[in-house]
Amino acid sequence: MIRALVFDVFGTLVDWRSGVAREAARLLGAEVPTLDAGAFADAWRRRYGPSLETVRSGARPFVDLDTLHADSLPLVLAEFGIVGVSDATQRELVQAWHRLDAWPDVPHALRRLRTRHLLAPNSNGHIRLMADLARRNGLIFDAILGAGHSRDYKPKPALYRDAVAAFGFAPAETLMVAAHSGDLAAAASHGLSTAHIARPRENGPGGGETAPNVPVTYAARDLTDLADQLGC
Amino acid sequence: MIRALVFDVFGTLVDWRSGVAREAARLLGAEVPTLDAGAFADAWRRRYGPSLETVRSGARPFVDLDTLHADSLPLVLAEFGIVGVSDATQRELVQAWHRLDAWPDVPHALRRLRTRHLLAPNSNGHIRLMADLARRNGLIFDAILGAGHSRDYKPKPALYRDAVAAFGFAPAETLMVAAHSGDLAAAASHGLSTAHIARPRENGPGGGETAPNVPVTYAARDLTDLADQLGC
Repeated sequence: MIRALVFDVFGTLVDWRSGVAREAARLLGAEVPTLDAGAFADAWRRRYGPSLETVRSGARPFVDLDTLHADSLPLVLAEFGIVGVSDATQRELVQAWHRLDAWPDVPHALRRLRTRHLLAPNSNGHIRLMADLARRNGLIFDAILGAGHSRDYKPKPALYRDAVAAFGFAPAETLMVAAHSGDLAAAASHGLSTAHIARPRENGPGGGETAPNVPVTYAARDLTDLADQLGC
Repeated sequence: MIRALVFDVFGTLVDWRSGVAREAARLLGAEVPTLDAGAFADAWRRRYGPSLETVRSGARPFVDLDTLHADSLPLVLAEFGIVGVSDATQRELVQAWHRLDAWPDVPHALRRLRTRHLLAPNSNGHIRLMADLARRNGLIFDAILGAGHSRDYKPKPALYRDAVAAFGFAPAETLMVAAHSGDLAAAASHGLSTAHIARPRENGPGGGETAPNVPVTYAARDLTDLADQLGC
């Protein structure tokens, strides 16, 4: 019996690559007409894991994802040979991550899931970032968990344990929903139930996970399929 | 310019006294037909401040309000000479605090306020407790802040500082909304704007604050009046 669903967000609920590429083209395209905006989004995303690791390892105290994105942005700009981007434009670029669109199946499926379950993001994005994405896409959650709540980053144990504790159900009654097998393997190691959502276009031409490569409780084609499987 | 509203909940958004009295009458009335259920609610609430202080003082590690309510319940039962209440009934009584009704002005006024502002509870109630109260009353928040987020209790500074930081606006752009002058004085000391909501029936025959006794940014008759004053 599943009582609460906690969601990965970047890639699972929202299409980060298209949104970041759109904002990069808008903000940099005039000065860099040859910019491959999708590749720019990919390059920024590649900095994500190493950025998180500086916090997870204890090398730096917890800072939110806006700070990590702002710190890695100059490296990405340099990688593309883009110089002279103003501080104001860099701040706007960081806001790109607040302006992502949900995958088309998400808004309606979340409304169905919410009729029978408590819902929360369990993302590496902080509270304001999650609130902005929810508002933009008309998503309603019962709480915002994840990095802003646990002051650390997945896959550290606190993120999964705190997500279970916040709603107070048994771990197996709490379903971690993600398009990434590594996130689900970590959740399962703490006793959570797990649902994999196929997002074959997460990385654009780079594809995305079409199926889990670890054991999961549910494997779904999209969030609508998960709502069907849960009988919502 | 106000950008986010953070709310006290018990007394400000929900009528704790009537709800706890209703549940106490339901669960204890058969065995204690003479129970003054309102007085029972008052007695339990009187234990609230001292219970919170055990955590605020550092005498015990953070525990949530369900735990504090469960710990103080036997003392309240003893105060009323009620003996032999089963563990199961005591657990149900603790759940009374999850089954409180909003004051009648709250649901519609919150919807109005949400059109222009980010909203979150900043209560001493934990995340599940806030989620249950929101669901019961059809309230939609952008996040749940307060004790479950800060792992401490008002009026400790962390509750106000963390509420500001979670949405990331300036302190003065963050409006603490409460029916209790003490809560607002603490918020103001950290730079937040403040709104007092009159709740003259919070304590039943014991009354409630009809006006703030400290300087505030807004003083409102109810939440509808606050929405009017904010131009929502």
